[in-house]
Amino acid sequence: MASQPVATDTPTNEFDRATAVRPNLEPDRFTATIDPGWTVGTKPNGGYLLAMAARAAGVALGHGGSPHRDPLSATAHFLRAPDPGPTEIRTEVLRSGRSASQVRASLWQSQACCVDATFTMGTLPDPPVAAPFWSDNAPVDLAPIDQCVLMPSSRPGSEMTVSIMDRCQLRLDPADLGFATGSPSGRGELRGWMTLADGRPLDALALLFVADALPPATFEVVMSGWVPTLSLSVAVRAIPAPGPVRIRQAVGSIDDGRFDEVCEIWDGEGRLVAQATQLAAIRLPPDASAAT
Amino acid sequence: MASQPVATDTPTNEFDRATAVRPNLEPDRFTATIDPGWTVGTKPNGGYLLAMAARAAGVALGHGGSPHRDPLSATAHFLRAPDPGPTEIRTEVLRSGRSASQVRASLWQSQACCVDATFTMGTLPDPPVAAPFWSDNAPVDLAPIDQCVLMPSSRPGSEMTVSIMDRCQLRLDPADLGFATGSPSGRGELRGWMTLADGRPLDALALLFVADALPPATFEVVMSGWVPTLSLSVAVRAIPAPGPVRIRQAVGSIDDGRFDEVCEIWDGEGRLVAQATQLAAIRLPPDASAAT
Repeated sequence: MASQPVATDTPTNEFDRATAVRPNLEPDRFTATIDPGWTVGTKPNGGYLLAMAARAAGVALGHGGSPHRDPLSATAHFLRAPDPGPTEIRTEVLRSGRSASQVRASLWQSQACCVDATFTMGTLPDPPVAAPFWSDNAPVDLAPIDQCVLMPSSRPGSEMTVSIMDRCQLRLDPADLGFATGSPSGRGELRGWMTLADGRPLDALALLFVADALPPATFEVVMSGWVPTLSLSVAVRAIPAPGPVRIRQAVGSIDDGRFDEVCEIWDGEGRLVAQATQLAAIRLPPDASAAT
Repeated sequence: MASQPVATDTPTNEFDRATAVRPNLEPDRFTATIDPGWTVGTKPNGGYLLAMAARAAGVALGHGGSPHRDPLSATAHFLRAPDPGPTEIRTEVLRSGRSASQVRASLWQSQACCVDATFTMGTLPDPPVAAPFWSDNAPVDLAPIDQCVLMPSSRPGSEMTVSIMDRCQLRLDPADLGFATGSPSGRGELRGWMTLADGRPLDALALLFVADALPPATFEVVMSGWVPTLSLSVAVRAIPAPGPVRIRQAVGSIDDGRFDEVCEIWDGEGRLVAQATQLAAIRLPPDASAAT
Protein backbone atom coordinates (compact mmCIF):
# COMPACT_ATOMS: atom_id res chain seq x y z
CA MET A 1 0.00 0.00 0.00
CA ALA A 2 1.32 3.36 -0.94
CA SER A 3 2.30 5.65 1.88
CA GLN A 4 -0.40 8.08 2.84
CA PRO A 5 0.18 11.78 2.49
CA VAL A 6 0.61 13.45 5.85
CA ALA A 7 -2.49 15.42 6.78
CA THR A 8 -1.71 19.09 6.94
CA ASP A 9 -2.92 19.32 10.52
CA THR A 10 -0.60 16.61 11.80
CA PRO A 11 2.21 18.31 13.72
CA THR A 12 5.58 17.63 12.19
CA ASN A 13 7.53 17.74 15.43
CA GLU A 14 7.60 15.36 18.37
CA PHE A 15 6.48 17.80 21.05
CA ASP A 16 3.38 19.06 19.27
CA ARG A 17 2.40 15.52 18.27
CA ALA A 18 2.86 14.16 21.80
CA THR A 19 0.89 16.98 23.43
CA ALA A 20 -1.91 17.12 20.84
CA VAL A 21 -5.44 17.17 22.21
CA ARG A 22 -8.53 16.14 20.28
CA PRO A 23 -12.05 17.47 20.82
CA ASN A 24 -14.40 15.22 22.69
CA LEU A 25 -18.19 15.10 22.58
CA GLU A 26 -18.42 17.76 25.25
CA PRO A 27 -16.76 21.11 24.46
CA ASP A 28 -14.84 21.23 27.74
CA ARG A 29 -13.40 17.72 27.42
CA PHE A 30 -10.53 16.50 25.29
CA THR A 31 -8.91 13.21 24.56
CA ALA A 32 -5.18 12.79 24.19
CA THR A 33 -2.60 10.07 24.12
CA ILE A 34 0.20 9.97 26.65
CA ASP A 35 3.20 9.09 24.51
CA PRO A 36 5.53 6.35 25.83
CA GLY A 37 8.45 8.35 24.42
CA TRP A 38 8.07 11.07 27.09
CA THR A 39 8.68 8.96 30.17
CA VAL A 40 11.08 8.50 33.06
CA GLY A 41 11.15 4.77 33.59
CA THR A 42 7.60 3.66 32.86
CA LYS A 43 5.89 6.88 33.96
CA PRO A 44 5.27 10.05 31.93
CA ASN A 45 7.27 13.14 32.81
CA GLY A 46 5.29 15.65 34.88
CA GLY A 47 6.26 18.71 32.85
CA TYR A 48 5.16 16.91 29.68
CA LEU A 49 1.73 16.24 31.21
CA LEU A 50 1.53 19.86 32.33
CA ALA A 51 2.25 21.04 28.77
CA MET A 52 -0.51 18.78 27.45
CA ALA A 53 -2.96 20.19 29.99
CA ALA A 54 -1.92 23.75 29.10
CA ARG A 55 -2.59 23.06 25.44
CA ALA A 56 -6.10 21.88 26.30
CA ALA A 57 -6.59 25.00 28.44
CA GLY A 58 -5.69 27.21 25.49
CA VAL A 59 -8.05 25.36 23.13
CA ALA A 60 -10.86 25.62 25.69
CA LEU A 61 -10.30 29.37 25.88
CA GLY A 62 -10.40 29.52 22.09
CA HIS A 63 -13.87 27.98 22.08
CA GLY A 64 -15.03 31.05 23.97
CA GLY A 65 -13.22 33.45 21.66
CA SER A 66 -10.25 34.21 23.92
CA PRO A 67 -6.89 34.52 22.15
CA HIS A 68 -4.90 33.46 25.25
CA ARG A 69 -2.68 30.45 24.51
CA ASP A 70 0.44 31.03 26.63
CA PRO A 71 0.58 29.78 30.22
CA LEU A 72 1.86 32.77 32.21
CA SER A 73 1.57 30.77 35.42
CA ALA A 74 0.97 27.03 35.60
CA THR A 75 0.41 25.14 38.84
CA ALA A 76 -0.14 21.40 39.14
CA HIS A 77 -0.69 18.85 41.84
CA PHE A 78 0.16 15.26 40.97
CA LEU A 79 -2.26 12.74 42.45
CA ARG A 80 -1.34 9.52 40.65
CA ALA A 81 1.10 8.76 37.87
CA PRO A 82 -0.86 7.81 34.75
CA ASP A 83 0.42 5.26 32.26
CA PRO A 84 1.19 5.92 28.62
CA GLY A 85 -1.99 5.57 26.58
CA PRO A 86 -5.32 7.33 26.32
CA THR A 87 -6.23 10.11 28.73
CA GLU A 88 -9.12 12.51 29.08
CA ILE A 89 -8.52 16.18 29.87
CA ARG A 90 -11.36 18.05 31.55
CA THR A 91 -11.20 21.82 31.36
CA GLU A 92 -13.11 24.60 33.03
CA VAL A 93 -12.66 28.22 32.04
CA LEU A 94 -12.75 30.06 35.37
CA ARG A 95 -12.50 33.53 33.91
CA SER A 96 -11.89 34.91 30.45
CA GLY A 97 -10.33 38.34 30.78
CA ARG A 98 -8.76 40.98 28.62
CA SER A 99 -5.10 40.59 29.56
CA ALA A 100 -5.27 37.23 31.33
CA SER A 101 -7.65 34.29 31.71
CA GLN A 102 -7.77 31.42 34.18
CA VAL A 103 -8.48 27.81 33.28
CA ARG A 104 -8.47 24.57 35.23
CA ALA A 105 -7.45 21.42 33.40
CA SER A 106 -7.33 17.97 34.94
CA LEU A 107 -5.98 14.81 33.41
CA TRP A 108 -7.93 11.61 33.96
CA GLN A 109 -7.25 7.96 33.34
CA SER A 110 -9.41 4.97 34.34
CA GLN A 111 -11.95 7.31 35.95
CA ALA A 112 -9.33 8.71 38.32
CA CYS A 113 -7.89 12.19 38.38
CA CYS A 114 -4.13 11.93 37.89
CA VAL A 115 -3.03 15.56 37.51
CA ASP A 116 -4.94 18.67 38.57
CA ALA A 117 -3.62 21.84 36.97
CA THR A 118 -4.65 25.48 36.92
CA PHE A 119 -3.37 28.09 34.52
CA THR A 120 -3.28 31.84 34.26
CA MET A 121 -3.12 32.23 30.50
CA GLY A 122 -2.22 35.23 28.39
CA THR A 123 -0.29 36.20 25.29
CA LEU A 124 3.45 36.68 25.55
CA PRO A 125 4.95 39.08 23.00
CA ASP A 126 6.75 37.15 20.26
CA PRO A 127 9.41 38.28 19.78
CA PRO A 128 9.69 39.65 23.33
CA VAL A 129 9.79 43.34 24.16
CA ALA A 130 13.23 44.87 23.96
CA ALA A 131 14.54 44.03 27.42
CA PRO A 132 13.24 43.36 30.91
CA PHE A 133 12.60 46.53 32.92
CA TRP A 134 14.78 45.12 35.70
CA SER A 135 16.30 41.78 36.59
CA ASP A 136 18.29 40.45 39.48
CA ASN A 137 18.45 37.09 37.86
CA ALA A 138 21.65 36.89 35.85
CA PRO A 139 22.03 33.72 33.76
CA VAL A 140 23.75 30.91 35.60
CA ASP A 141 27.45 30.57 34.99
CA LEU A 142 28.29 27.21 33.46
CA ALA A 143 30.68 25.51 31.07
CA PRO A 144 30.28 26.20 27.32
CA ILE A 145 27.79 23.89 25.65
CA ASP A 146 30.48 21.92 23.80
CA GLN A 147 32.17 21.09 27.11
CA CYS A 148 28.94 19.87 28.72
CA VAL A 149 27.94 16.22 28.73
CA LEU A 150 24.93 14.93 26.78
CA MET A 151 22.59 12.94 29.04
CA PRO A 152 21.70 9.58 27.51
CA SER A 153 18.29 7.92 27.81
CA SER A 154 19.88 4.78 29.17
CA ARG A 155 23.19 3.95 30.78
CA PRO A 156 25.02 0.67 31.23
CA GLY A 157 24.19 -0.70 34.67
CA SER A 158 21.02 1.36 35.04
CA GLU A 159 17.71 -0.44 34.73
CA MET A 160 15.77 2.72 34.05
CA THR A 161 15.28 4.21 30.61
CA VAL A 162 14.69 7.96 30.64
CA SER A 163 13.05 8.29 27.25
CA ILE A 164 12.60 12.07 27.54
CA MET A 165 16.38 12.27 27.03
CA ASP A 166 15.77 11.13 23.43
CA ARG A 167 13.21 13.94 22.99
CA CYS A 168 15.52 16.68 24.20
CA GLN A 169 19.22 17.28 24.23
CA LEU A 170 20.28 17.99 27.79
CA ARG A 171 23.95 18.77 28.33
CA LEU A 172 25.02 19.05 31.96
CA ASP A 173 28.04 20.89 33.31
CA PRO A 174 30.71 18.27 34.05
CA ALA A 175 31.18 19.80 37.53
CA ASP A 176 27.65 18.65 38.42
CA LEU A 177 28.00 15.06 37.28
CA GLY A 178 29.26 13.57 40.55
CA PHE A 179 26.04 11.56 40.78
CA ALA A 180 26.88 9.71 37.57
CA THR A 181 29.92 8.13 39.22
CA GLY A 182 28.44 7.77 42.70
CA SER A 183 30.23 10.84 44.11
CA PRO A 184 27.67 13.63 44.49
CA SER A 185 29.18 17.11 44.78
CA GLY A 186 27.13 17.95 47.87
CA ARG A 187 26.03 21.24 46.27
CA GLY A 188 22.51 20.11 45.33
CA GLU A 189 22.72 21.92 42.00
CA LEU A 190 22.58 20.93 38.33
CA ARG A 191 23.40 23.31 35.49
CA GLY A 192 22.94 22.61 31.83
CA TRP A 193 21.91 23.52 28.31
CA MET A 194 18.78 22.24 26.60
CA THR A 195 17.12 22.10 23.21
CA LEU A 196 14.42 19.82 21.86
CA ALA A 197 16.04 16.95 19.94
CA ASP A 198 14.23 17.63 16.66
CA GLY A 199 14.97 21.33 16.74
CA ARG A 200 11.45 22.54 17.47
CA PRO A 201 11.81 26.04 18.94
CA LEU A 202 11.02 26.46 22.63
CA ASP A 203 7.83 28.37 23.29
CA ALA A 204 5.68 28.88 26.39
CA LEU A 205 4.21 25.36 26.22
CA ALA A 206 7.56 23.68 25.69
CA LEU A 207 9.06 25.60 28.64
CA LEU A 208 6.61 23.76 30.93
CA PHE A 209 8.34 20.56 29.86
CA VAL A 210 11.83 22.03 30.15
CA ALA A 211 11.07 23.22 33.71
CA ASP A 212 10.74 19.60 34.86
CA ALA A 213 13.09 17.75 32.52
CA LEU A 214 16.31 17.69 34.52
CA PRO A 215 17.20 14.88 36.91
CA PRO A 216 16.41 15.81 40.53
CA ALA A 217 19.10 18.10 41.91
CA THR A 218 19.00 15.92 45.04
CA PHE A 219 21.14 13.49 43.00
CA GLU A 220 24.04 15.83 43.80
CA VAL A 221 23.31 15.45 47.54
CA VAL A 222 22.34 11.81 48.06
CA MET A 223 21.46 8.84 45.90
CA SER A 224 17.83 7.85 46.32
CA GLY A 225 15.05 6.04 44.54
CA TRP A 226 12.20 7.62 42.62
CA VAL A 227 11.33 11.17 43.67
CA PRO A 228 7.67 11.71 42.79
CA THR A 229 6.67 15.35 42.26
CA LEU A 230 3.84 16.45 44.56
CA SER A 231 3.35 19.87 43.03
CA LEU A 232 4.94 21.98 40.33
CA SER A 233 4.54 25.71 39.68
CA VAL A 234 5.97 27.39 36.61
CA ALA A 235 5.98 31.09 35.74
CA VAL A 236 6.72 31.61 32.05
CA ARG A 237 8.21 35.08 31.65
CA ALA A 238 9.10 35.38 27.98
CA ILE A 239 9.33 33.48 24.69
CA PRO A 240 12.96 32.36 24.42
CA ALA A 241 15.22 33.58 21.65
CA PRO A 242 16.08 30.75 19.21
CA GLY A 243 18.69 28.27 20.34
CA PRO A 244 19.53 26.40 23.52
CA VAL A 245 18.42 27.62 26.93
CA ARG A 246 20.51 27.60 30.11
CA ILE A 247 19.01 25.88 33.14
CA ARG A 248 19.86 25.89 36.82
CA GLN A 249 18.07 23.49 39.13
CA ALA A 250 18.82 23.64 42.84
CA VAL A 251 17.54 22.03 46.02
CA GLY A 252 16.41 24.26 48.89
CA SER A 253 16.14 21.76 51.71
CA ILE A 254 15.50 18.06 52.17
CA ASP A 255 13.32 17.78 55.29
CA ASP A 256 10.88 15.17 56.59
CA GLY A 257 10.85 13.11 53.38
CA ARG A 258 10.24 16.02 51.03
CA PHE A 259 12.37 18.55 49.20
CA ASP A 260 11.85 21.80 47.36
CA GLU A 261 13.67 22.57 44.17
CA VAL A 262 13.89 25.75 42.10
CA CYS A 263 14.46 25.66 38.34
CA GLU A 264 15.43 28.78 36.43
CA ILE A 265 15.70 29.00 32.65
CA TRP A 266 17.43 31.70 30.57
CA ASP A 267 17.55 32.07 26.82
CA GLY A 268 20.67 32.69 24.73
CA GLU A 269 20.31 36.42 25.21
CA GLY A 270 20.45 36.03 28.98
CA ARG A 271 16.79 36.72 29.65
CA LEU A 272 14.97 34.82 32.39
CA VAL A 273 12.27 32.99 30.43
CA ALA A 274 10.86 30.74 33.15
CA GLN A 275 11.07 30.15 36.86
CA ALA A 276 9.70 27.03 38.49
CA THR A 277 9.40 25.50 41.94
CA GLN A 278 8.48 22.00 42.85
CA LEU A 279 7.86 20.03 46.00
CA ALA A 280 8.69 16.35 45.71
CA ALA A 281 8.83 13.33 47.97
CA ILE A 282 12.10 11.52 48.56
CA ARG A 283 12.67 8.17 50.22
CA LEU A 284 16.12 7.93 51.73
CA PRO A 285 17.82 4.72 52.76
CA PRO A 286 17.88 4.47 56.60
CA ASP A 287 21.66 4.89 56.65
CA ALA A 288 21.78 7.70 54.09
CA SER A 289 24.08 10.62 54.67
CA ALA A 290 24.36 13.79 52.62
CA ALA A 291 27.45 14.40 50.48
CA THR A 292 29.49 17.40 51.54
CA MET B 1 -27.40 43.90 78.73
CA ALA B 2 -24.71 41.86 80.47
CA SER B 3 -21.83 40.72 78.32
CA GLN B 4 -22.25 37.21 77.04
CA PRO B 5 -19.76 34.49 77.93
CA VAL B 6 -17.53 33.59 75.02
CA ALA B 7 -18.58 30.28 73.49
CA THR B 8 -15.84 27.71 73.93
CA ASP B 9 -15.62 27.12 70.20
CA THR B 10 -15.02 30.77 69.38
CA PRO B 11 -11.36 31.21 68.56
CA THR B 12 -9.64 33.55 70.98
CA ASN B 13 -7.12 34.87 68.50
CA GLU B 14 -7.52 37.13 65.50
CA PHE B 15 -6.17 34.77 62.86
CA ASP B 16 -8.37 31.79 63.71
CA ARG B 17 -11.42 34.03 64.03
CA ALA B 18 -10.78 35.75 60.70
CA THR B 19 -10.19 32.48 58.83
CA ALA B 20 -13.02 30.51 60.45
CA VAL B 21 -15.28 28.58 58.09
CA ARG B 22 -18.82 27.47 58.90
CA PRO B 23 -20.58 24.44 57.45
CA ASN B 24 -23.09 25.09 54.73
CA LEU B 25 -26.10 23.02 53.69
CA GLU B 26 -23.93 21.00 51.34
CA PRO B 27 -20.99 19.15 52.92
CA ASP B 28 -18.46 20.45 50.40
CA ARG B 29 -19.47 24.10 50.78
CA PHE B 30 -18.62 26.51 53.55
CA THR B 31 -19.48 30.07 54.42
CA ALA B 32 -17.00 32.49 55.86
CA THR B 33 -16.58 36.19 56.45
CA ILE B 34 -13.75 38.12 54.88
CA ASP B 35 -12.61 40.33 57.73
CA PRO B 36 -12.00 44.03 56.92
CA GLY B 37 -9.05 43.90 59.32
CA TRP B 38 -6.96 41.75 56.96
CA THR B 39 -6.79 44.12 54.01
CA VAL B 40 -4.35 46.15 51.94
CA GLY B 41 -6.25 49.29 51.10
CA THR B 42 -9.81 48.09 50.60
CA LYS B 43 -8.96 44.60 49.36
CA PRO B 44 -8.24 41.46 51.41
CA ASN B 45 -4.68 40.18 51.49
CA GLY B 46 -4.13 37.20 49.16
CA GLY B 47 -2.28 35.05 51.70
CA TYR B 48 -5.08 35.59 54.20
CA LEU B 49 -7.62 34.33 51.63
CA LEU B 50 -5.36 31.37 50.86
CA ALA B 51 -5.23 30.46 54.58
CA MET B 52 -9.02 30.61 54.78
CA ALA B 53 -9.32 28.32 51.75
CA ALA B 54 -6.77 25.91 53.27
CA ARG B 55 -8.77 25.73 56.47
CA ALA B 56 -11.87 24.77 54.47
CA ALA B 57 -9.82 22.16 52.60
CA GLY B 58 -8.76 20.57 55.90
CA VAL B 59 -12.33 20.51 57.24
CA ALA B 60 -13.55 18.95 53.98
CA LEU B 61 -10.93 16.22 54.34
CA GLY B 62 -12.05 15.68 57.92
CA HIS B 63 -15.59 14.98 56.71
CA GLY B 64 -14.17 11.97 54.88
CA GLY B 65 -12.10 10.84 57.85
CA SER B 66 -8.73 12.13 56.69
CA PRO B 67 -6.50 13.64 59.41
CA HIS B 68 -4.67 15.91 56.97
CA ARG B 69 -4.90 19.57 58.03
CA ASP B 70 -1.55 21.08 57.03
CA PRO B 71 -1.07 22.54 53.55
CA LEU B 72 2.22 21.03 52.33
CA SER B 73 1.81 22.79 49.01
CA ALA B 74 -0.71 25.52 48.30
CA THR B 75 -1.26 27.06 44.87
CA ALA B 76 -3.71 29.81 44.06
CA HIS B 77 -4.76 31.86 41.08
CA PHE B 78 -6.42 35.19 41.81
CA LEU B 79 -9.27 36.00 39.43
CA ARG B 80 -10.95 38.97 41.10
CA ALA B 81 -10.36 40.71 44.40
CA PRO B 82 -13.33 40.06 46.67
CA ASP B 83 -14.59 42.63 49.18
CA PRO B 84 -14.71 42.19 52.92
CA GLY B 85 -17.94 40.45 53.86
CA PRO B 86 -19.57 37.08 53.26
CA THR B 87 -17.95 34.54 50.97
CA GLU B 88 -18.67 30.96 50.00
CA ILE B 89 -15.88 28.40 49.79
CA ARG B 90 -16.48 25.42 47.53
CA THR B 91 -14.26 22.41 48.12
CA GLU B 92 -13.62 19.21 46.23
CA VAL B 93 -11.53 16.42 47.67
CA LEU B 94 -9.55 15.21 44.67
CA ARG B 95 -7.80 12.36 46.46
CA SER B 96 -7.60 11.26 50.06
CA GLY B 97 -4.34 9.37 50.55
CA ARG B 98 -2.28 7.91 53.36
CA SER B 99 0.56 10.42 53.53
CA ALA B 100 -0.95 13.24 51.46
CA SER B 101 -4.34 14.30 50.09
CA GLN B 102 -5.32 16.81 47.42
CA VAL B 103 -8.19 19.26 47.72
CA ARG B 104 -9.42 22.10 45.55
CA ALA B 105 -11.01 25.08 47.30
CA SER B 106 -12.42 28.10 45.52
CA LEU B 107 -13.65 31.30 47.08
CA TRP B 108 -16.80 32.85 45.65
CA GLN B 109 -18.56 36.15 46.09
CA SER B 110 -21.61 37.47 44.20
CA GLN B 111 -21.73 34.26 42.13
CA ALA B 112 -18.22 34.86 40.82
CA CYS B 113 -15.09 32.83 41.54
CA CYS B 114 -12.53 35.16 43.11
CA VAL B 115 -9.74 32.77 44.15
CA ASP B 116 -9.10 29.27 42.87
CA ALA B 117 -6.76 27.27 45.10
CA THR B 118 -5.49 23.71 45.19
CA PHE B 119 -3.75 22.08 48.12
CA THR B 120 -1.63 19.04 48.74
CA MET B 121 -2.43 18.45 52.40
CA GLY B 122 -0.65 16.29 54.98
CA THR B 123 0.43 16.33 58.59
CA LEU B 124 3.64 18.09 59.52
CA PRO B 125 5.40 16.76 62.62
CA ASP B 126 4.83 19.08 65.58
CA PRO B 127 7.36 19.61 66.96
CA PRO B 128 9.43 19.02 63.81
CA VAL B 129 11.86 16.14 63.41
CA ALA B 130 15.29 16.82 64.79
CA ALA B 131 16.88 18.60 61.84
CA PRO B 132 16.54 18.74 58.07
CA PHE B 133 18.48 16.00 56.28
CA TRP B 134 20.16 18.67 54.17
CA SER B 135 19.69 22.34 53.46
CA ASP B 136 21.33 24.84 51.19
CA ASN B 137 19.05 27.52 52.44
CA ALA B 138 20.76 29.33 55.30
CA PRO B 139 18.62 31.92 57.08
CA VAL B 140 18.88 35.36 55.59
CA ASP B 141 21.32 37.69 57.23
CA LEU B 142 19.59 40.76 58.61
CA ALA B 143 19.72 43.28 61.44
CA PRO B 144 18.68 42.13 64.94
CA ILE B 145 14.96 42.43 65.54
CA ASP B 146 15.32 45.40 67.91
CA GLN B 147 17.14 47.35 65.20
CA CYS B 148 14.47 46.67 62.59
CA VAL B 149 11.62 49.07 61.91
CA LEU B 150 8.00 48.21 62.72
CA MET B 151 5.77 48.72 59.69
CA PRO B 152 2.69 50.80 60.52
CA SER B 153 -0.76 50.23 59.06
CA SER B 154 -0.92 53.83 57.95
CA ARG B 155 1.60 56.56 57.33
CA PRO B 156 1.28 60.32 57.14
CA GLY B 157 0.93 61.28 53.50
CA SER B 158 -0.20 57.85 52.39
CA GLU B 159 -3.85 57.41 51.49
CA MET B 160 -3.77 53.65 51.86
CA THR B 161 -4.33 51.80 55.12
CA VAL B 162 -2.62 48.42 55.28
CA SER B 163 -4.72 46.87 58.03
CA ILE B 164 -2.81 43.58 58.01
CA MET B 165 0.03 45.52 59.64
CA ASP B 166 -2.18 45.73 62.75
CA ARG B 167 -2.67 41.94 62.69
CA CYS B 168 1.04 41.16 62.51
CA GLN B 169 4.21 42.79 63.65
CA LEU B 170 6.50 43.17 60.67
CA ARG B 171 9.90 44.69 61.35
CA LEU B 172 11.98 45.42 58.25
CA ASP B 173 15.73 45.77 58.05
CA PRO B 174 16.52 49.51 57.90
CA ALA B 175 18.79 48.85 54.90
CA ASP B 176 15.71 47.85 52.88
CA LEU B 177 13.60 50.87 53.70
CA GLY B 178 14.68 53.13 50.87
CA PHE B 179 11.16 52.97 49.46
CA ALA B 180 9.75 54.63 52.57
CA THR B 181 11.68 57.80 51.77
CA GLY B 182 11.40 57.59 48.00
CA SER B 183 14.94 56.25 47.51
CA PRO B 184 14.69 52.55 46.65
CA SER B 185 17.92 50.61 47.18
CA GLY B 186 17.77 49.05 43.71
CA ARG B 187 18.34 45.60 45.21
CA GLY B 188 14.72 44.42 44.92
CA GLU B 189 14.90 42.73 48.31
CA LEU B 190 13.11 43.11 51.65
CA ARG B 191 14.25 41.37 54.83
CA GLY B 192 12.39 41.32 58.10
CA TRP B 193 11.06 39.63 61.21
CA MET B 194 7.41 38.73 61.77
CA THR B 195 5.04 37.56 64.46
CA LEU B 196 1.27 37.75 64.70
CA ALA B 197 0.31 40.81 66.74
CA ASP B 198 -1.68 38.89 69.35
CA GLY B 199 1.04 36.32 69.84
CA ARG B 200 -0.75 33.40 68.21
CA PRO B 201 1.96 30.89 67.27
CA LEU B 202 2.71 30.47 63.57
CA ASP B 203 1.56 27.14 62.17
CA ALA B 204 1.14 25.81 58.64
CA LEU B 205 -2.04 27.81 58.01
CA ALA B 206 -0.59 31.05 59.36
CA LEU B 207 2.53 30.62 57.20
CA LEU B 208 0.31 30.95 54.12
CA PHE B 209 -0.53 34.45 55.33
CA VAL B 210 3.08 35.27 56.26
CA ALA B 211 4.24 34.21 52.78
CA ASP B 212 2.27 37.07 51.23
CA ALA B 213 2.30 39.71 53.97
CA LEU B 214 5.33 41.80 53.05
CA PRO B 215 5.12 44.83 50.79
CA PRO B 216 6.15 43.96 47.22
CA ALA B 217 9.93 43.77 46.94
CA THR B 218 9.55 45.79 43.73
CA PHE B 219 9.19 48.81 46.06
CA GLU B 220 12.97 48.62 46.40
CA VAL B 221 13.33 48.90 42.61
CA VAL B 222 10.67 51.33 41.47
CA MET B 223 7.65 53.06 42.94
CA SER B 224 4.45 51.84 41.36
CA GLY B 225 0.78 51.53 42.01
CA TRP B 226 -1.10 48.45 43.14
CA VAL B 227 0.58 45.14 42.23
CA PRO B 228 -2.18 42.52 42.01
CA THR B 229 -1.03 38.96 42.56
CA LEU B 230 -1.85 36.68 39.64
CA SER B 231 -0.75 33.45 41.26
CA LEU B 232 0.86 32.38 44.52
CA SER B 233 2.48 29.05 45.37
CA VAL B 234 3.61 28.20 48.89
CA ALA B 235 5.46 25.10 50.08
CA VAL B 236 5.20 24.73 53.84
CA ARG B 237 8.20 22.71 55.01
CA ALA B 238 7.94 22.60 58.80
CA ILE B 239 6.05 23.96 61.80
CA PRO B 240 8.09 26.93 63.05
CA ALA B 241 9.67 26.96 66.48
CA PRO B 242 7.97 29.51 68.77
CA GLY B 243 8.92 33.14 68.25
CA PRO B 244 9.42 35.46 65.30
CA VAL B 245 10.33 34.17 61.86
CA ARG B 246 12.85 35.69 59.46
CA ILE B 247 11.64 36.53 55.99
CA ARG B 248 13.40 37.38 52.75
CA GLN B 249 11.37 38.53 49.79
CA ALA B 250 13.17 39.19 46.51
CA VAL B 251 12.22 40.06 42.95
CA GLY B 252 13.49 37.89 40.10
CA SER B 253 12.71 40.06 37.12
CA ILE B 254 10.26 42.76 36.09
CA ASP B 255 9.38 42.05 32.48
CA ASP B 256 6.42 42.90 30.23
CA GLY B 257 4.26 44.25 33.06
CA ARG B 258 4.73 41.31 35.40
CA PHE B 259 7.27 40.28 38.03
CA ASP B 260 8.15 37.14 39.95
CA GLU B 261 9.02 37.26 43.58
CA VAL B 262 10.39 34.59 45.92
CA CYS B 263 9.61 34.62 49.65
CA GLU B 264 11.57 32.44 52.07
CA ILE B 265 10.75 32.05 55.75
CA TRP B 266 12.98 30.64 58.51
CA ASP B 267 12.16 30.03 62.14
CA GLY B 268 14.27 31.09 65.12
CA GLU B 269 16.27 27.89 64.91
CA GLY B 270 17.29 28.65 61.34
CA ARG B 271 15.09 26.08 59.68
CA LEU B 272 13.45 26.85 56.33
CA VAL B 273 9.74 26.61 57.21
CA ALA B 274 8.21 27.90 53.98
CA GLN B 275 9.16 28.87 50.46
CA ALA B 276 6.81 30.79 48.20
CA THR B 277 6.76 32.21 44.69
CA GLN B 278 4.34 34.62 43.20
CA LEU B 279 3.69 36.18 39.83
CA ALA B 280 2.13 39.62 40.01
CA ALA B 281 1.21 42.38 37.61
CA ILE B 282 2.84 45.79 37.87
CA ARG B 283 1.89 49.01 36.15
CA LEU B 284 4.83 51.32 35.72
CA PRO B 285 4.61 55.02 34.95
CA PRO B 286 5.66 55.62 31.32
CA ASP B 287 8.80 57.44 32.42
CA ALA B 288 9.74 54.97 35.18
CA SER B 289 13.33 53.96 35.60
CA ALA B 290 14.74 51.34 37.94
CA ALA B 291 16.78 52.39 40.96
CA THR B 292 20.39 51.23 40.88
